[in-house]
Amino acid sequence: MTRFQRQRRIRFADCDPAGIVFYPQYFVMFNGLVEEWFDDALRIEYRSVVTTRRIGLPTVRLEAEFKAVSRLGDPVQLSLEVERLGAHSLTLALQCHGQHNDDVRMRMRQTLVTTSLATHKAIEIPTDLRDAVARFADIAP
Amino acid sequence: MTRFQRQRRIRFADCDPAGIVFYPQYFVMFNGLVEEWFDDALRIEYRSVVTTRRIGLPTVRLEAEFKAVSRLGDPVQLSLEVERLGAHSLTLALQCHGQHNDDVRMRMRQTLVTTSLATHKAIEIPTDLRDAVARFADIAP
Amino acid sequence: MTRFQRQRRIRFADCDPAGIVFYPQYFVMFNGLVEEWFDDALRIEYRSVVTTRRIGLPTVRLEAEFKAVSRLGDPVQLSLEVERLGAHSLTLALQCHGQHNDDVRMRMRQTLVTTSLATHKAIEIPTDLRDAVARFADIAP
Amino acid sequence: MTRFQRQRRIRFADCDPAGIVFYPQYFVMFNGLVEEWFDDALRIEYRSVVTTRRIGLPTVRLEAEFKAVSRLGDPVQLSLEVERLGAHSLTLALQCHGQHNDDVRMRMRQTLVTTSLATHKAIEIPTDLRDAVARFADIAP
Repeated sequence: MTRFQRQRRIRFADCDPAGIVFYPQYFVMFNGLVEEWFDDALRIEYRSVVTTRRIGLPTVRLEAEFKAVSRLGDPVQLSLEVERLGAHSLTLALQCHGQHNDDVRMRMRQTLVTTSLATHKAIEIPTDLRDAVARFADIAP
Repeated sequence: MTRFQRQRRIRFADCDPAGIVFYPQYFVMFNGLVEEWFDDALRIEYRSVVTTRRIGLPTVRLEAEFKAVSRLGDPVQLSLEVERLGAHSLTLALQCHGQHNDDVRMRMRQTLVTTSLATHKAIEIPTDLRDAVARFADIAP
Repeated sequence: MTRFQRQRRIRFADCDPAGIVFYPQYFVMFNGLVEEWFDDALRIEYRSVVTTRRIGLPTVRLEAEFKAVSRLGDPVQLSLEVERLGAHSLTLALQCHGQHNDDVRMRMRQTLVTTSLATHKAIEIPTDLRDAVARFADIAP
Repeated sequence: MTRFQRQRRIRFADCDPAGIVFYPQYFVMFNGLVEEWFDDALRIEYRSVVTTRRIGLPTVRLEAEFKAVSRLGDPVQLSLEVERLGAHSLTLALQCHGQHNDDVRMRMRQTLVTTSLATHKAIEIPTDLRDAVARFADIAP
């Protein structure tokens, strides 16, 4: 399965008084990863999807498991795979791990839906996005 | 089932460029709700759990569904119920809804584990916390 | 000088690995205070300023001093006074202190400008807002 | 004057309902820049300063000017220069600009003090840090 991956270091602002990543911060990191995936892998500029085309990508469902803590200064890998490509939504499998692939810190499955930012109602995934995701994931569009 | 509830207004800092709550912000709101639940309902000071007793309450698992958007300025209700009280962990059912109970914005099930902040390993839920949660939820400790 | 004031408790999400408020979080708290000042003291709904009237209130200048740390669980007072009411901007004096007025944690002077959210250019402060601020601060509009 | 510089793209989570950077987010970005400056330019690992040596670097004073908006997707440059190296504190000049050096989005002057994380009291800047900063800034330690 094709995997999009980025390195990142855990920063002070990501951490809580326990000195470890405050868990909502993982979702902030993954949101940034999805933006980079659009820009760098799908070759569809994320900003223009939201700003010019007024298409939203809200989360409708997520399940997350936290397996081990990440600490200030830890270099981590964030990765993304496409699990399902529906008519109005797509499901991603996201993971944060340390230097070794089996050092999983947390993983989640997230379903995003494409919406009109005028109405916040679901719309069909636009053709260019569908095609790019299908190509990336090597599945039928 | 006993429910702990707090009102809140959606603030500018909670919202994203789509003018609606940025979803990780719900988890930040719920973290605050859990702190108020400790302080006001369980009568166990949250700060002293973390700061003096060096007990952590990290999330090990969560599942969330986002049903409707919340917008800047919306008054919302945040609510919490105890679903399960284990030896080392407890599962909460959390919900954000609008003015009417059936206007659900998002809901989630979250499992928290008690840990030692020295080792980040799970520890048994301390007796006073177990008793307070059992009393709140009207279940056997 | 008229002062608008709100109580708040320092929450887990406000704090950093040093166990004290991460300083950008003070600005988030003050942004919420300005929203409450609009809603509760000026009686001009903040959400409708931004959402319906499409008027922005970006910060153009700020100076802040941090005098003492705030810790997890601390009850704090946030306060706001109007220092200057210009044609396109207003300057606020904001403060966070502990239970006693002389226990100042941080204070800042912040200049906000009214802008059109279509162009992000400065506009004259709308008459209803100018009048309400002048009335609050007991200065000539 | 020696300048430490990093590229970054403005992300969704940085932006507010006006579609531009929510100003406290600049301070979060600059905190990350200071961490990278420690790690990559000063060659003193930021994490070990905070975590092992228990030295804090809280802000005691800052002045910021916001000159132009940054929007979702903007590539920006964050830069840092040392303005003053005192006994217990150092003053940085930080800037965020767009692709061209004269496209300044915001700039600030920030004074950081070294503290003991046990007491939150100021301590003398440790020798290795003082030497590294002096070397970076080409000033007498």
